[in-house]
Amino acid sequence: MAPALELLEKPAQYLPVKALSAIGNGDIARVGLESTEKHERVMNAFRAFIADLCQQYGEGHAGSPMGMAAIGISLYKYVMKYSPNNCNYFNRDRFVLSNGHACLWQYLFMHLVGVKSMTLEQLKSYHSAKLDSVCPGHPEIENEGIEVTTGPLGQGLASAVGLAMATKNLAATYNKPGHELVNNMTWCMVGDACLQEGVGLEALSLAGHWKLNNLCVIFDNNSVTCDGTADVANTEDINTKMRATGFNVVDVYNGNSDVPEITNALLAAKLSDKPTFINIRTTIGYGAAKAGTADIHGAALGVDEVANFKRRFSLNPDEHFHIPQDVYDFFSDIPGRGEAHEAGWQNALVNYQNEDPVLAAEFALRVAGKMPEDWTKCIPRTADQPTAPTATRKSAGVVTNALAVNINSFLVGTADLTPSVNVAYKNKVDFQSPELQTACGLNGTYSGRYIHYGIREHAMCSISNGLSAFNKGTFIPMTSTYFVFHLYAAAGVRMAALQGLQQIHIATHDSIGVGENGPTHQPIAVAALYRAMPNVLYIRPCDAEEVAGAYIAAIQATETPTVISLSRQSLTQYPQNSSREGTLKGAYVFTEAEGGDFDVTLIGVGSEMGYAMQTRELLLSEHGIRARVVSFPCTRLFEQQSREYKQSVLKSRAGKPTVVIEAYPSNGWERYADAAVSMNSFGKSLPSKETYEHFGFAPESIAPKVKDLVEEVRRDGIGILRGDFRDFNGSLRIGVEHKRFYKVYE
Amino acid sequence: MAPALELLEKPAQYLPVKALSAIGNGDIARVGLESTEKHERVMNAFRAFIADLCQQYGEGHAGSPMGMAAIGISLYKYVMKYSPNNCNYFNRDRFVLSNGHACLWQYLFMHLVGVKSMTLEQLKSYHSAKLDSVCPGHPEIENEGIEVTTGPLGQGLASAVGLAMATKNLAATYNKPGHELVNNMTWCMVGDACLQEGVGLEALSLAGHWKLNNLCVIFDNNSVTCDGTADVANTEDINTKMRATGFNVVDVYNGNSDVPEITNALLAAKLSDKPTFINIRTTIGYGAAKAGTADIHGAALGVDEVANFKRRFSLNPDEHFHIPQDVYDFFSDIPGRGEAHEAGWQNALVNYQNEDPVLAAEFALRVAGKMPEDWTKCIPRTADQPTAPTATRKSAGVVTNALAVNINSFLVGTADLTPSVNVAYKNKVDFQSPELQTACGLNGTYSGRYIHYGIREHAMCSISNGLSAFNKGTFIPMTSTYFVFHLYAAAGVRMAALQGLQQIHIATHDSIGVGENGPTHQPIAVAALYRAMPNVLYIRPCDAEEVAGAYIAAIQATETPTVISLSRQSLTQYPQNSSREGTLKGAYVFTEAEGGDFDVTLIGVGSEMGYAMQTRELLLSEHGIRARVVSFPCTRLFEQQSREYKQSVLKSRAGKPTVVIEAYPSNGWERYADAAVSMNSFGKSLPSKETYEHFGFAPESIAPKVKDLVEEVRRDGIGILRGDFRDFNGSLRIGVEHKRFYKVYE
Repeated sequence: MAPALELLEKPAQYLPVKALSAIGNGDIARVGLESTEKHERVMNAFRAFIADLCQQYGEGHAGSPMGMAAIGISLYKYVMKYSPNNCNYFNRDRFVLSNGHACLWQYLFMHLVGVKSMTLEQLKSYHSAKLDSVCPGHPEIENEGIEVTTGPLGQGLASAVGLAMATKNLAATYNKPGHELVNNMTWCMVGDACLQEGVGLEALSLAGHWKLNNLCVIFDNNSVTCDGTADVANTEDINTKMRATGFNVVDVYNGNSDVPEITNALLAAKLSDKPTFINIRTTIGYGAAKAGTADIHGAALGVDEVANFKRRFSLNPDEHFHIPQDVYDFFSDIPGRGEAHEAGWQNALVNYQNEDPVLAAEFALRVAGKMPEDWTKCIPRTADQPTAPTATRKSAGVVTNALAVNINSFLVGTADLTPSVNVAYKNKVDFQSPELQTACGLNGTYSGRYIHYGIREHAMCSISNGLSAFNKGTFIPMTSTYFVFHLYAAAGVRMAALQGLQQIHIATHDSIGVGENGPTHQPIAVAALYRAMPNVLYIRPCDAEEVAGAYIAAIQATETPTVISLSRQSLTQYPQNSSREGTLKGAYVFTEAEGGDFDVTLIGVGSEMGYAMQTRELLLSEHGIRARVVSFPCTRLFEQQSREYKQSVLKSRAGKPTVVIEAYPSNGWERYADAAVSMNSFGKSLPSKETYEHFGFAPESIAPKVKDLVEEVRRDGIGILRGDFRDFNGSLRIGVEHKRFYKVYE
Repeated sequence: MAPALELLEKPAQYLPVKALSAIGNGDIARVGLESTEKHERVMNAFRAFIADLCQQYGEGHAGSPMGMAAIGISLYKYVMKYSPNNCNYFNRDRFVLSNGHACLWQYLFMHLVGVKSMTLEQLKSYHSAKLDSVCPGHPEIENEGIEVTTGPLGQGLASAVGLAMATKNLAATYNKPGHELVNNMTWCMVGDACLQEGVGLEALSLAGHWKLNNLCVIFDNNSVTCDGTADVANTEDINTKMRATGFNVVDVYNGNSDVPEITNALLAAKLSDKPTFINIRTTIGYGAAKAGTADIHGAALGVDEVANFKRRFSLNPDEHFHIPQDVYDFFSDIPGRGEAHEAGWQNALVNYQNEDPVLAAEFALRVAGKMPEDWTKCIPRTADQPTAPTATRKSAGVVTNALAVNINSFLVGTADLTPSVNVAYKNKVDFQSPELQTACGLNGTYSGRYIHYGIREHAMCSISNGLSAFNKGTFIPMTSTYFVFHLYAAAGVRMAALQGLQQIHIATHDSIGVGENGPTHQPIAVAALYRAMPNVLYIRPCDAEEVAGAYIAAIQATETPTVISLSRQSLTQYPQNSSREGTLKGAYVFTEAEGGDFDVTLIGVGSEMGYAMQTRELLLSEHGIRARVVSFPCTRLFEQQSREYKQSVLKSRAGKPTVVIEAYPSNGWERYADAAVSMNSFGKSLPSKETYEHFGFAPESIAPKVKDLVEEVRRDGIGILRGDFRDFNGSLRIGVEHKRFYKVYE
């Protein structure tokens, strides 16, 4: 094992036990710390139970939960403000287990403090085939007492930053002197991984910048990862790095058993003017023979060693899944204390209502997770939409502006693209620490709702998960970046979809028409991901009216993240054709063919609708082919419609092929079309129009191909197309052409 | 603007100009530094040219290139070892412009030092509609003198770490005392963004850990991003953070014009025992009226201001795109010096061949980008494949082992999943700094080829781009992680695909059968992304024989990254059916129906092949339905085949439907099938078999549905299926079910 690189002096923030009564909610002052003997009784029983559980299934993560036993006592017995009888009490402290594989630790403490759904039977169902288990392999938001789903490493940490932001914003918006409606802490457990993952590092930088002193990151520093000792891939000086990132850093050297020291450190976090990072040295699998090694990270101890472990700590090796009564007793005051917290908050709420009924009403609405009913007024009326060519990013800006100006639920952020994404709203105030007004001259405060995330797309989306999860509906976070950078953020958006968190992601520059930025900025394959991802609405509106529809869909989808995909370039508006109601159905008839009967259906999508409509004209004028056009902004919404509606839109009939026109790969369009004008390679650095022309999207290129197809189908029937989908631009290729000047030495 | 937070003392590594002759390749000692006046002449002309270029097109990035003029002189005139007449000279210093939007800076310096393809005409084509431009909006690897494509921020920085690793590994493998075949530096320019993006932060942590002292990160610290001053989203102490990350930090305070100071700092990097971070304060758009503001980040100066700028620096405002002869003269010695470097290296190569002809031959092969011809011996013979159920991750491990043991081109890495991904090979030596052997007791050295990337999937893949790009074919990096985490890494893999870089990504745990880790670890939508991404081979083998085929495909695809998608769970082996040759064609007939004629085609894919084969049996025994089975490991490879071959495999005929069985969304399979047994939601935390059963993959669930479909088609014809693709498990839904215990306060 490597020597620790951290500084060894105790930080100034470290508080002596006798100072505890000065702090926070006073729980400690009232209850006092129990004796070391009692703590040891609890820890021994806790660790034995974990060992039994993992042994029962022959696998599971035993090591971290055993190492974190003392930390759990500090959090669940002494420090956290929560109510086991109502895990969703609004002003509760939020706890996030970012090292989600250690979930047994959380499940067992939830059982001990009296969370009703967490029964012994449920605990024993961990890693079993029980369908209604509340003990899945990672914590899941659906289950009582779990704030956010974790597992993919770094995600919980970013969510915790969002949860802490939510508190700051609500507190700054609604608290008044003598009326603290919202003042909870956010506690986040992390392991080595969360401090290595980029999304975690991005989120930490922001937490430090924003001075989120209501956030405490607790590092279970057991120095072991799957590959062995953590220093096999990491030898940085984490304490110094965290200080440089804007954190208060507190060291705990005996995290295995020194409950008072851990408790002190946690309480110190509540006094800090910065976010706090507690570096707690623990031993993975503490007490077991293989303690301190990677062997115990994701494995059971073995029958003999479980027995030995129990003997080592004076427990009966023949007792399994045994919680002694005195251990239950140790936590027996928690439900009552929780109810007192809750009652105190209800009381504060009543006083607040008397003080300021108007603000109290707004607060109540947000606690209920509801928007003001007149939000629909923020959506531009059809009659007011532009008729001149307009980029959909501009049309979206109009809607964002109205929503953000009028409704406090919207937190609008950008990954450093304010000049390009059009989400900056009128009289916006930045979300910033007020201290930075003095230090840096920044304009902002915690009640501000415009968020500069910096160039951190992944953290932006993952932090948004915390904002959404704080209390569903209290916030609707909006993010903004170029669509191609949603590939950086995809793992974050996926966590929103998995958790059923409402968000609106403004994704501009969504086609090959982004101009000279070139292929690195042209999001060829990203749409395929979001169309396939469960519980995501990916919507590509073709003009301002469809943009309005996209926002309505996004706001109505209260358990779904929506990605609104927008053009950089100006697009023709189709006031005679486009429809918000049609957009809400995913696809609709944009225009029937001249005269009613038709030869071919063209599917136009988002930024490429203009090419479909121009092709339609050319087909008629040059080739006498009658084309109808279907607008198809959202495949997911279309799939929700009735079979009858779908058939009325697609009108697939023998002898009349359907061609989709979209500057992405055709993957998935085969469901609705027989042929595609699509992209089979990455893009190119050219002006918008020239890029489309280069890749065969000019109507003059498309029309003859469609004509040939129509004639072929007339001649040979539609049957020939089965298993023979036509990609007019070829299929996706392997290999790229290189003109690099190699000089080979052989 | 915020006050700088960095320490203000000059670091010890700072060298006085007079010490220059002690350093490195001696260029400075030989040429000496030119006068301040000459430097200013060059900078003024350089900045005016940039201003002219952006003005010509009315946009483009003028600010950063103007601010970085002095840095460019230091690099291109004094410090970098390169040869403009042969930009691919093997032992050249690698230069990466990670802030790729500043590409005009690089293009113009390449022109000044005499890179032939970079003509004045080409420069002037920047942001024009010129198809064969070598001046795209971001640097592209296809063009002479560009080491890696950059643009998506943070990617270049990670690639630079890979380039520096490549040098270290080659040097440790081939250099001998007195024979330095490989000793180049890697220089990487970054802006604020690369230091904010998670992938950049992950890569920096690794560079510090590995003590890559041949890497120098040059921070163009102009304190401005798109959103305004950088402190709007970042107030960390970057110097302290970089020191804590393991970097040597050097400050330069006048980066706008102090060429000697910049040169000193760059040369100091060559003496460091750690990677070096040079924090150079510059002014964005130096010399222009809007210098130092975000307004000049991505915009032209305006006609009047371009003229004013020229007047300000005593240039003729009526001259455009003008490079004075003395500016050309300033760089006129560069081509000759470059040729001397190259000649010296050729000479060293000859001496080395005399010293050690065997190693020299291997080195020559690698310089030529070739593998030993007998690599095929590393692929297990068909006759030696297992017949008992085996996880494909295990079968893949056998191949990885043989390749890695025998061929030095393979660098095998893992994102901290050594115990799970089976890529650790026999007698592996870790890639580590030898110094850490003493400091941490780690077993490893720079010639080691097993790479512990830590829990940093994105950096793992993006660093691999640098390894691949060092010299195409010299390295074939292999990475490994769970497939779901390829969502973290997707932006990195995309850059490999865009650049045509060969890599093998081992992606295990690829289905819903990953066990109790649950939905966070079940990669429902990830395959859709990689199947749609141009120039990626995504291969899902169904057994060991198809695994062999996947590796052969990956090794043969020399300009393509391959993702080999593998099961955690044991899979039935099909020695009578599976075929490596079939795998190379993407899809093939796995088994025809009993007796020849058939009623339905089942497509089996990867880890789900067993369900297809079992369904086939059940259809016959229970329902008298004759099914043939097609194995479909790779859609991309199949699309390369002839129409005849495709039809022979799919055999689509009226009245005989095709059903695909895969535990991913059906998106894209509509091209080959009429119906799907697929996933329409995220997964669940259950044991492998129970998960499949829960989601309807048991043959007992599938067979009756297929029977109904066959009968419906017999009755109504195949026509009814058009535009009416059957997802047996329903279509992808919006909204998720929540059983959360909400208590609402209203």
